[in-house]
Amino acid sequence: MNILVSNDDGIDSLGIVSLVRALKPLGKVTVVAPDRQQSAVGHSLTFSSPLRATPFHRDGEILGYSINGTPCDCVKLALSTLLDEKPDMVISGINHGANTAINILYSGTVSAATEGMLSGIPSMAVSVNSHDNNADFSSAMHYSYLLAKNLLNLNMPKDTFLNVNIPALPLESIKGIKTVEHNSSLWKDEYIERFDPFGQKYYWFSGKYEVFNSNVDVDDILLEEDYVTITPVQYNLTNKVFLKNIKHLEEL
Amino acid sequence: MNILVSNDDGIDSLGIVSLVRALKPLGKVTVVAPDRQQSAVGHSLTFSSPLRATPFHRDGEILGYSINGTPCDCVKLALSTLLDEKPDMVISGINHGANTAINILYSGTVSAATEGMLSGIPSMAVSVNSHDNNADFSSAMHYSYLLAKNLLNLNMPKDTFLNVNIPALPLESIKGIKTVEHNSSLWKDEYIERFDPFGQKYYWFSGKYEVFNSNVDVDDILLEEDYVTITPVQYNLTNKVFLKNIKHLEEL
Repeated sequence: MNILVSNDDGIDSLGIVSLVRALKPLGKVTVVAPDRQQSAVGHSLTFSSPLRATPFHRDGEILGYSINGTPCDCVKLALSTLLDEKPDMVISGINHGANTAINILYSGTVSAATEGMLSGIPSMAVSVNSHDNNADFSSAMHYSYLLAKNLLNLNMPKDTFLNVNIPALPLESIKGIKTVEHNSSLWKDEYIERFDPFGQKYYWFSGKYEVFNSNVDVDDILLEEDYVTITPVQYNLTNKVFLKNIKHLEEL
Repeated sequence: MNILVSNDDGIDSLGIVSLVRALKPLGKVTVVAPDRQQSAVGHSLTFSSPLRATPFHRDGEILGYSINGTPCDCVKLALSTLLDEKPDMVISGINHGANTAINILYSGTVSAATEGMLSGIPSMAVSVNSHDNNADFSSAMHYSYLLAKNLLNLNMPKDTFLNVNIPALPLESIKGIKTVEHNSSLWKDEYIERFDPFGQKYYWFSGKYEVFNSNVDVDDILLEEDYVTITPVQYNLTNKVFLKNIKHLEEL
């Protein structure tokens, strides 16, 4: 099995190293990932400047390529140009920090899986629920392996990929897996105002994540309750119900 | 009426100047937009570096702020911090180039409208179907005005905004308005390989847009047939049908 791995924390992050180690028993793993931290780039694409692909070594072995671009660039360049053959799956992560609710729109990790899916390849994004540099990736590695092993048997629709969030806890503390919808929780934006050494004002993004009180099983709530959450994500974005209500605009 | 305007082509682009002119008769228009071209940044958010807000003047009048960030940054900073009161609507554009099908995922223009919607404000993204610097914006201005005028009467659901594409043609050549789904067309990726003056290889994004042969009315096909297209966009991304098929993963 050929597996393409990418992420948004950069090719040298602990998360991607853990993911490669977890997936190695399943086949050939090729890494094509950003050369630096690219969190919150969303589905950003580089077309106004050129991309470079630098072979990436570890212990004398070439593992893939480091790219001066976004996760989306990495997967597009890999699939169209760098790889000799189409991989069997695209797996992105393991991201430092959960990617839950509608906040997946901002996630580079999720965008890498989206690109795999858009190219017709079974894809999955994996995140661990901690921003700690020393976060426990052991369970994330375990479940990444298990889910990747099962990914091709799911008969996943062409327009869908899996978004997986895993507690940063040892295996024995995890309560199980839940297949769930994403929540509607939002980041409550705040910008901190500061002044630079020259007295000029600047703003730094801040704020907090506000969990929406859902009445069905959802990703962020169950993740906080120490479950692994799996959400099948698709991008059929038309609101078809409301579409019927705006027919009268055609008369404007 | 208070209208917040943003875009991804930059605060000095012909598209945003045209949009401000078109909307002026409706009320007070405040512009908060990127200080430079930000196309294809998708839903990118800046949190690893600070943002600056520079007052933006035209003919001695302050129109708003120029931001060293993405469209998403602009709307978040405006709504949370820069504006004195919540605007009645957020309108993004007029983008140079159509934003149709699933390619709206890459669009900074659409992401600005998304941010407005996520903050509970009726929002709309407007694009013109031409990348020409001298594109005809006259019809785009006409329909931006008309649709903005009607936006608050639509009873748009909280999770939905309008994505509007307009031919770069004079009014008399436009066949009418169609309220449609977005298509599933994809960009067929290619990267052109070149060598820099030092003999090192680089890659430049290229490729072409491949129109999916839809059997229902869709945005890109009708736009090419000289209709204005309106698509109500929402981000309920869970594939709820497939969710029922993966319950067995909970037993892994």
